Amino acid sequence: MMNTIPERLTALRAAMAQAGCDAYIMPSSDPHSSEYAPAHYTAWEYFSGFPCENSTFVVTAQEAALWVDGRFFGAADAALAGTGVASMHMGVKGVPTVNEWLTEKLAAGKVLGYTAETMPVTQCRSLHELCDKLGAKLADLPLVDQVWTEDRPALPTSNAWLLNPMYAGKTPTEKLAELRSKLTELGCTAMLVTKLDSVAWLLNLRAADVDNTPYALAFCYVDQNSAVLFTDTARLSADALAQLEQAGVKTAAYNGMPAYLAEGTTAQTVLVDPSSLNAALDNALRGNQVYTVVEGADPIALMKAVKNETELACTRAAHLVDGAAMVRFQIELEQRLAAGETLRETDIDTILHKYRGSAEKFIVESFPTIAAWGSNAAMMHYAPQVGADAAITGNGYLLVDSGATYYDGTTDITRTFAVGPVTEEEKLAYTRVLRCHIDIAMAVWREGATGGELDMLARQPLWRHMLDYRCGTGHGVSHVGAVHEGPQSLRPHNGIVFVPGMVITDEPGIYEEGHMGIRIENELVCVEAGESEYGKFLRFEPLTFVPIDLSCVLVDELTREEKQWLNNYHAQVLAKLRPLLNEGEAAWLAAKCAAI
Amino acid sequence: MMNTIPERLTALRAAMAQAGCDAYIMPSSDPHSSEYAPAHYTAWEYFSGFPCENSTFVVTAQEAALWVDGRFFGAADAALAGTGVASMHMGVKGVPTVNEWLTEKLAAGKVLGYTAETMPVTQCRSLHELCDKLGAKLADLPLVDQVWTEDRPALPTSNAWLLNPMYAGKTPTEKLAELRSKLTELGCTAMLVTKLDSVAWLLNLRAADVDNTPYALAFCYVDQNSAVLFTDTARLSADALAQLEQAGVKTAAYNGMPAYLAEGTTAQTVLVDPSSLNAALDNALRGNQVYTVVEGADPIALMKAVKNETELACTRAAHLVDGAAMVRFQIELEQRLAAGETLRETDIDTILHKYRGSAEKFIVESFPTIAAWGSNAAMMHYAPQVGADAAITGNGYLLVDSGATYYDGTTDITRTFAVGPVTEEEKLAYTRVLRCHIDIAMAVWREGATGGELDMLARQPLWRHMLDYRCGTGHGVSHVGAVHEGPQSLRPHNGIVFVPGMVITDEPGIYEEGHMGIRIENELVCVEAGESEYGKFLRFEPLTFVPIDLSCVLVDELTREEKQWLNNYHAQVLAKLRPLLNEGEAAWLAAKCAAI
Repeated sequence: MMNTIPERLTALRAAMAQAGCDAYIMPSSDPHSSEYAPAHYTAWEYFSGFPCENSTFVVTAQEAALWVDGRFFGAADAALAGTGVASMHMGVKGVPTVNEWLTEKLAAGKVLGYTAETMPVTQCRSLHELCDKLGAKLADLPLVDQVWTEDRPALPTSNAWLLNPMYAGKTPTEKLAELRSKLTELGCTAMLVTKLDSVAWLLNLRAADVDNTPYALAFCYVDQNSAVLFTDTARLSADALAQLEQAGVKTAAYNGMPAYLAEGTTAQTVLVDPSSLNAALDNALRGNQVYTVVEGADPIALMKAVKNETELACTRAAHLVDGAAMVRFQIELEQRLAAGETLRETDIDTILHKYRGSAEKFIVESFPTIAAWGSNAAMMHYAPQVGADAAITGNGYLLVDSGATYYDGTTDITRTFAVGPVTEEEKLAYTRVLRCHIDIAMAVWREGATGGELDMLARQPLWRHMLDYRCGTGHGVSHVGAVHEGPQSLRPHNGIVFVPGMVITDEPGIYEEGHMGIRIENELVCVEAGESEYGKFLRFEPLTFVPIDLSCVLVDELTREEKQWLNNYHAQVLAKLRPLLNEGEAAWLAAKCAAI
Repeated sequence: MMNTIPERLTALRAAMAQAGCDAYIMPSSDPHSSEYAPAHYTAWEYFSGFPCENSTFVVTAQEAALWVDGRFFGAADAALAGTGVASMHMGVKGVPTVNEWLTEKLAAGKVLGYTAETMPVTQCRSLHELCDKLGAKLADLPLVDQVWTEDRPALPTSNAWLLNPMYAGKTPTEKLAELRSKLTELGCTAMLVTKLDSVAWLLNLRAADVDNTPYALAFCYVDQNSAVLFTDTARLSADALAQLEQAGVKTAAYNGMPAYLAEGTTAQTVLVDPSSLNAALDNALRGNQVYTVVEGADPIALMKAVKNETELACTRAAHLVDGAAMVRFQIELEQRLAAGETLRETDIDTILHKYRGSAEKFIVESFPTIAAWGSNAAMMHYAPQVGADAAITGNGYLLVDSGATYYDGTTDITRTFAVGPVTEEEKLAYTRVLRCHIDIAMAVWREGATGGELDMLARQPLWRHMLDYRCGTGHGVSHVGAVHEGPQSLRPHNGIVFVPGMVITDEPGIYEEGHMGIRIENELVCVEAGESEYGKFLRFEPLTFVPIDLSCVLVDELTREEKQWLNNYHAQVLAKLRPLLNEGEAAWLAAKCAAI
């Protein structure tokens, strides 16, 4: 049995010794370089004992070190103390990077082991360079698979289905045709579709392999004549199999792609996106002379980011259902707090789930609810834990960032509520964040503007006071999929041009350590504003319709145009949600939506 | 004698026939790819009969065609009708480009002639490619020099001097050291400094070779041990020669650089900027094996754009003197119009020159004054001509865009004045332009923002109404030099990061064809705004202090912050200019600067 970290490390080191391996490296990655890896692939967590994203774990015969980013410094230090695993603070001056550390540990003739399937090709190349420089050897050694067996979570086997074209707007046949035409444009004849988001979009494939994200672990090979979906085929519904067959898509086992590539006999110019390619697939591809490899950005990302009319109509409907749930949540929250009940942060998710989960098309929350009271909200990635969460008592702000995926859309919304009286200073902070939000929401621009250019508008109300938030203003949202999607984003220097159909969150904030966090988030969709002699103009339109707490707005701080936007928004919230609410709920909403 | 265009073209065609040349091409360029060429180099104007910038003239045995941009369509059509020269509208669908036209005229074995000295290397390469494709031959044939002799303007011989370090802030020695260190950073050992702005900055060299711009026609060669200035050395003052010698700079004839390069015997890695390199220099450089040529952006552009403390202090002083002249001009304008006098557009420059020209440090107007009444102001590049200019009668807006170069700085300012009562609609347009101006002027940003990102702020007050101006919001201004400088600019997609010391104009506008033009322009300098836990913040500070006509501002359209900025600006205008004015002028100014 391997219940303790020392036991696990001992077993790993024994395997390393047997394989002649001096150091073993585990990046926090699955075979697709996903943002969140399924449990089966979380070897760095299993062997280090500390769960985190964006990390790397390295083990030698004597030492072990886990690199963690700023979000995890404190927690990792506490968890790793005394385990023999060093907590390495990434980006901190004086702390060596993974490669710098390896330079100290490796030497000529030494062997650095890794698992190619979960090694991003870009990191693999950097390690190759390092080993070449040191005279060391980089070896694909499946030691994780060898050591981590009996207590390892299985690969996910959730039911997989194809999203109905009534929600997706296009069939796999149509999407494959679009991709093939795009590949021709790019001078390629084939593509390895390796990012889960892209496979999901291309074939309308959905499942529940990844927490909070309705995707299936899968790869897809596409050329001008054929397409092969690599996934656990057993859990594909008969209907899904029939639809795939109709689209000319063959199916094969999830791990079957390297063998498939090895067997290829037709010359192909194959596009791969290094940002989601693992080293095993890269080896397989480059090992077969029939392929000419072209590296470039996954073209599906942009195709997926621009929603079609059906996707937008469905998303709008999903947001109204989600909005009604948010209204019911707020009513219950107010009533229970008014009744003197002490609610805790984790109760928020329970209440939200009650209302969202009862919706007919509900699938799953789109991410773990962030319900943060007072100073907890200053931590941007705070996730309350049952038993360790704060009680909502006293006065201050309650930040609630939540969302769900329905069969017709994915939502992401943040509201910050004043609980009890808040100070003038707190109201000013809230009002400034609201101004940032509105300044994006009411932006109009001549077509051609980028996310980086638009981001400038969001921050002026804070920057003028030398305040800021240490993140983008907003991210894309997938349609019935991952809550984060690119390539568009509202963030300094983002160079993606906004086009009609792109969805983006608008979520500026103020995070004051030890005091409070304020964030106001709607999803917006880019639409045409009209045309004049100067060209075509674009703007955003809200997808989210949920009242914004007006009790903490300093009305005089808003410009006339901002006030107009706010009153117009609340009039729309009322008009759009009223049909979904009962009389009492509607009356509550009408009061919240009164013009200021 | 060659007084007519047909006579000139006949002479050119005779020379072409003799040289075996089937087509001859003249770009609108001098040897430095300058924005404005000295008269000596305006062959395309001499042979086509039409003066314009940004143009190309091509002559064959039977045909001749001049390519002109949108600004000149009407005028070129009128001037060229019946001369045998076709007026080609660049960028218009169906009109062939120069290369497309040449493809029709040339064939295998044909010869296309050009003058290498005035041919930008980039255009030369494009022509080489074209000729290679057609099997034609591109030949450096000095036919312009051969045909255009007796009535050709001489090369400029204006007195050249070195700008005193009390105005420049740095000596040539210091600047050469900076450049050499920058070249090392770029992996180069030498550079051909070919842009007039760059030579002027590097050696503090000034003259009057170019209209409205105090530059000398000159090249400079710099390596780690030596520097050579190529210019008409006879007109260099003794003091200038002494200073250059002290800085280790040798001098040589203006046209001596090709020979100098041919004689080089030391291996050098030479940086050249193709955007200001002519084909003759490129040939000379590549004809000598000791040189390794590196093409890249001229590093002096950025060094020059970031003004030093002395330059800024001098510029601030120059702007106050310029501001006092503007105040006196406005007083005279108001008085004469009030007295019932009919002034014409060209009178504006006369009045302005009277006041600016009497300043002790005045050198020259920094560009021809744009004084545009009513609908004339809708033409962004309107230049009034004596005898053909409008009388300022009736009601409307008078746009005045002017500036000067003084020994301590260069200015560029636009004010738009209401003459007589203007309509509410006209006031709204003026107010919107003012908002655009202020929104840039009061911007604050975390360091790292680009000109493209900041430009977004300027246009919101217009874009929200689907209005726009078809140009950048602002350009850099040289210190005692050209009124346009890069690489920074306020313009969509400009990627240059603003840093303290950069000077930029802020000149949004509304141009309504047949009706009016409104522009409000100050020069601003980028300065530090302060530092907080979020980083370093930057902002702009006005360099221009001249009242903005408040009689046409709809105060309620401004935000509270914009109104504050405006009142604060006028308080500064009054405080800064009052010491330079007499009692009557000061009283006038105080009234103009009253808070709204």
